[in-house]
Amino acid sequence: MSDPLVIFTPSGKRGNFPIGTPILEAARELGVYVESVCGGRGICGRCQVAPEFGKFAKHGIESKADAVSEWSPKEIRYTDKRGALKDGRRLSCSATVQGPLVVDIPADAVVNQQTIRKEADSRLIERDPAIQMCYVEVDEPDMHKPLGDLDRLKVKLEQEWGFTDVLVSQHILPNVQKVLRDGNWTATVAIHQDLETSRPTMIALYPGLKNEAYGIACDIGSTTIAMHLSSLLSGNTLASSGTSNPQIRFGEDVMSRVSYVMMNPDGRESMTRAVRDAVNGLIQNVCSEAGIDPNDILDSVFVGNPIMHHLFLGIDPTELGGAPFALAVSGAVHTWASELDLSMNEGTRVYVLPCIAGHVGADAAAATLSEAPHNEDELSLLVDVGTNAEIVLGQTTQTLACSSPTGPAFEGAEISCGQRAAPGAIERVRIDPVSLEPKIRIIGVDLWSDEPGFTEMAKATGVTGICGSGIIEVMAEMFLAGIIDEDGVIDGDKAQVSSRIFEDKRTFSYRLWETEDGPDITVAQTDVRAIQMAKAALYAGVKLLMEKHGSDQVAKIRLAGAFGTFIDPKYALVMGLVPDCEIENVKAVGNAAGTGARMALLNRNHRREIEDTVKNIEKIETALEPKFQEHFVNAMAFPNKVDRFPRLEAEVTLPARKQQAEMADGEAGAARGRRGGAGGGRRRRRA
Amino acid sequence: MSDPLVIFTPSGKRGNFPIGTPILEAARELGVYVESVCGGRGICGRCQVAPEFGKFAKHGIESKADAVSEWSPKEIRYTDKRGALKDGRRLSCSATVQGPLVVDIPADAVVNQQTIRKEADSRLIERDPAIQMCYVEVDEPDMHKPLGDLDRLKVKLEQEWGFTDVLVSQHILPNVQKVLRDGNWTATVAIHQDLETSRPTMIALYPGLKNEAYGIACDIGSTTIAMHLSSLLSGNTLASSGTSNPQIRFGEDVMSRVSYVMMNPDGRESMTRAVRDAVNGLIQNVCSEAGIDPNDILDSVFVGNPIMHHLFLGIDPTELGGAPFALAVSGAVHTWASELDLSMNEGTRVYVLPCIAGHVGADAAAATLSEAPHNEDELSLLVDVGTNAEIVLGQTTQTLACSSPTGPAFEGAEISCGQRAAPGAIERVRIDPVSLEPKIRIIGVDLWSDEPGFTEMAKATGVTGICGSGIIEVMAEMFLAGIIDEDGVIDGDKAQVSSRIFEDKRTFSYRLWETEDGPDITVAQTDVRAIQMAKAALYAGVKLLMEKHGSDQVAKIRLAGAFGTFIDPKYALVMGLVPDCEIENVKAVGNAAGTGARMALLNRNHRREIEDTVKNIEKIETALEPKFQEHFVNAMAFPNKVDRFPRLEAEVTLPARKQQAEMADGEAGAARGRRGGAGGGRRRRRA
Repeated sequence: MSDPLVIFTPSGKRGNFPIGTPILEAARELGVYVESVCGGRGICGRCQVAPEFGKFAKHGIESKADAVSEWSPKEIRYTDKRGALKDGRRLSCSATVQGPLVVDIPADAVVNQQTIRKEADSRLIERDPAIQMCYVEVDEPDMHKPLGDLDRLKVKLEQEWGFTDVLVSQHILPNVQKVLRDGNWTATVAIHQDLETSRPTMIALYPGLKNEAYGIACDIGSTTIAMHLSSLLSGNTLASSGTSNPQIRFGEDVMSRVSYVMMNPDGRESMTRAVRDAVNGLIQNVCSEAGIDPNDILDSVFVGNPIMHHLFLGIDPTELGGAPFALAVSGAVHTWASELDLSMNEGTRVYVLPCIAGHVGADAAAATLSEAPHNEDELSLLVDVGTNAEIVLGQTTQTLACSSPTGPAFEGAEISCGQRAAPGAIERVRIDPVSLEPKIRIIGVDLWSDEPGFTEMAKATGVTGICGSGIIEVMAEMFLAGIIDEDGVIDGDKAQVSSRIFEDKRTFSYRLWETEDGPDITVAQTDVRAIQMAKAALYAGVKLLMEKHGSDQVAKIRLAGAFGTFIDPKYALVMGLVPDCEIENVKAVGNAAGTGARMALLNRNHRREIEDTVKNIEKIETALEPKFQEHFVNAMAFPNKVDRFPRLEAEVTLPARKQQAEMADGEAGAARGRRGGAGGGRRRRRA
Repeated sequence: MSDPLVIFTPSGKRGNFPIGTPILEAARELGVYVESVCGGRGICGRCQVAPEFGKFAKHGIESKADAVSEWSPKEIRYTDKRGALKDGRRLSCSATVQGPLVVDIPADAVVNQQTIRKEADSRLIERDPAIQMCYVEVDEPDMHKPLGDLDRLKVKLEQEWGFTDVLVSQHILPNVQKVLRDGNWTATVAIHQDLETSRPTMIALYPGLKNEAYGIACDIGSTTIAMHLSSLLSGNTLASSGTSNPQIRFGEDVMSRVSYVMMNPDGRESMTRAVRDAVNGLIQNVCSEAGIDPNDILDSVFVGNPIMHHLFLGIDPTELGGAPFALAVSGAVHTWASELDLSMNEGTRVYVLPCIAGHVGADAAAATLSEAPHNEDELSLLVDVGTNAEIVLGQTTQTLACSSPTGPAFEGAEISCGQRAAPGAIERVRIDPVSLEPKIRIIGVDLWSDEPGFTEMAKATGVTGICGSGIIEVMAEMFLAGIIDEDGVIDGDKAQVSSRIFEDKRTFSYRLWETEDGPDITVAQTDVRAIQMAKAALYAGVKLLMEKHGSDQVAKIRLAGAFGTFIDPKYALVMGLVPDCEIENVKAVGNAAGTGARMALLNRNHRREIEDTVKNIEKIETALEPKFQEHFVNAMAFPNKVDRFPRLEAEVTLPARKQQAEMADGEAGAARGRRGGAGGGRRRRRA
């Protein structure tokens, strides 16, 4: 009789194993990642799995209740000492194969009373971290075999964990003897091995059993720095924190920071110190939120745009300020936290994702890893909007990327009443197409301005300006209400309908909100122009990639970036930020770069994946493409003329346009609207 | 017709290569180490070889004058620009195989006007350093292929030098762009690859062609720290320097330094800082002597006894102060100079040889590497004498090592008129066997005290005491002159022959020298006892190893250590420091540990060799061996009773004894002496 079949889910990996094989061993042999710190001694509880029983037609297997060994003394002792395992879970180091069996590897293997951060991105990331915690029992010193303490430890690492030729961080040496004696000749070694083929390195050493290890994933934006703290053993996110990038004091956008470096001898150094200080502040924040010691952080992943990337690593970004926009390094960077003056364990490693090109950074690489257009069967578009828009278009067969110089308008800069997203900023807008009266929502208040209680609640912050997502909405709503036409001109005739439209020098403005004691919040013609330029740049970049790819439509759009967190995909389509697409296939995915960083933190295979992907991405430099300018000019209109949104009509445009059309043109206009060719309708109306 | 045979000497490696193969390529293919910095461009001159012409019966080959290609334009250009090569030398990157050929790889390949230090150990060490200098021409940035500067550099390293997956030291990143631009897109990369299988690391980067790289080898003794500076490319020693170990202020010997650590909370740190400061001082010395920049030192090797080793690495040596004498680490240590606060290039690596046991350190390992008893066909004994004697006994089949607690008497400590080797110290002694009058030599004066001019020349320093080698000689001469007997007792009857023997408390002393204004320099009974203890301990250690090996004699003896530099092998035999051996096979080899360190610096294969050797050495802990005490007691006599020196009689003992015998016993005694059994003769005389 052949050995019973064992199938692991969700991976589906399968193999035959002799009766009595510990499930952990079977998993390891098949390359299924199961954590274990204690090396099968039944004390860490990390190797828990969930045997599944029943008939699995899909796998062609029946997994019977007696296909797993009975509860072992090790498991009984574990649950006595550490508390019960979740229903149905077993310690895979102890439970053995007794018959054909299906085993589920749970994504979480929580053994401590961890506070799991509910707000954090709840995406489950399959784990295979670069850090492995290895518990060992070391022989005591023996004068007849005078191997050093460290050398006897290495013997066990090889015998029990299979790590040969282990390198040792210098900082461990002075502590080896004390740690081994404090742990009564037991210790837990943190081994770092990023590439499977590279030499494993001992980066930390703890007395006794150390059943936890942490990592941070950090996205260094020009404006905001965001950090997540994760358990490397359970994969859970335990704390998150963010702060504004203190480099802002040297320059609001990246190019002004490059200028600062060029004009100040110690500019690079000051900015490097500023960003590292801020990162250290966030490390303190996440650690105190999770109640852990920063010394227990053993791995870290950083992403950022090319200029943030260079400044963080202490590299002068001047070359990025002009053609040919040469990166000092584009590949992934491996270094030590201590080399970057980061306050974590002395042995903590730093992994920085690769940059794609001089304007398309490690943040775009991380977003690519997270949203994986390169793994899609159909053409997928990823847009990460910051000061520059980083655009990735691809599917399994081909992936392209470029950066488009949108400028900071989408972030609220260079807009007369624009501001960064902060309490008091207008983030949502609706304009009544008949009366042209607006209603708004501001950050920090969960009510629309026409709901009872808004005025009271808004008093705390006041209404201070318009943030990025608010700007998109107000423009789109102004367009839908007919206040601005397809060319972006604020229609002075509308002043007759509402006093909110008023003459302002030689053009017109729209008064969005009256404040009690400050200036009114208005949208000026110049603001509309700034947004037109930004969205035309974005769209031209997308169009260029689509042309290079030889496609005229995309199946899926993902909007990422701080901007992408709040934007309503409908308005992105209305404004013509992105090409036409089924609206249910357009999604705002928030900080995809941060998610990608977490993926690289928790699974070293993701590092290889993105390194390989980046190598294969076709990089398009918009500045070198003559057609970019043509696309740009064509994309200035609302919505741009080169691409219409027939399917969107029913969703968004129609209801607003419809009411307006009914007012203006009577039934004829409404009928045109209902025929579905919204673009055609508008064009005709305009003609 | 088959391809011509090419034979490389001195290795004898051979292979057939097609006509037109560059000699460099043939050497590489056979694993013959030939340096090349410029990658075959004919500009570095490092790859020079010496084709040999004639009939080589030994190799069964005739190497004709036309077996090598004619002078190439590259070689002509090189000699025009850089000066002529040594007679018969060719650039192996350019000269090609044209027929059956013998090629000698010269040990030196000097291309610069290096000052070669004549005094340094002139042993030629075959080179295969862990550092390789690689000149590359890098593609300029290209917006269409936005690889980073570093990444384009890595492409060339792979294409031209075969280094894949190169790691990059963090400190290089910020400078990559400037270096490449300064070198007009040419640069020289220093690659560190110690183990052939480990990932190569880029540790330094220079603009253009950098045709030199240096390394230091340093022996940290308890008393003296010695350093050599070598060219990694030519293998030459360019400068040497030494200094006393500043830790002496914390304790004269290693055990008192351990006590200092145990009793002072910052003791370890103070001593670590002291030794590193001293090392930094020596780095400055050797660099200024050779006229080079410390930043050009790219590799370093350190050795020392276990306690020096631990303190230098910042490890608390307390465990080494008592049983079981546990080393924190016994294997080789790989780290970075910057981790140890050493003032060299930021990327400089540190290699520390393995320790053999808790009392047998990396210095003994280095001496073993240098003297290679493990490679001897006949049994070979290596004794490295410091405060402890480290003893290695072996041959190809088996190697054993132990440490023997000789105490510091051999270094002049615990001897009433003893002192460290310094100007003014008595280092040589002869005693007239009849008159019992001595003559001496002191350090700093090249005359015997009975030669004209000595008194004048000695005035500068005075005669200040007796150093280690002087103590051995005075004891041996006193024994040969009959002033002390076989049991080490100063013979009071000799006071009748010379007033130099005088009663001193209840025993007798010998007045070796009268000083003008200080106390006389005398040898007391307690001094004889101290030396007896020391030499008995040393001999007992040797005897123990010989027993373990199952041998009763050795074919070869090497005396190493500072002590070994000056000791006269004859006196070592007379005193019974070492077992009987043909006197021509006993050699003082000076600082063998320093030579071993230089070997490990210049050839990484020597690192593997000593690591493997140390693993296979059988370590004997004398404290655990009951027979040690027995051997010790038996070895107290002069020369020890368990081992006689028949063959030595004619060399040393006879002439002195003969005169004395003639005086005392007439012809009968002389005849006994001539029979050859000196020991027998003495015993009979004593009975």
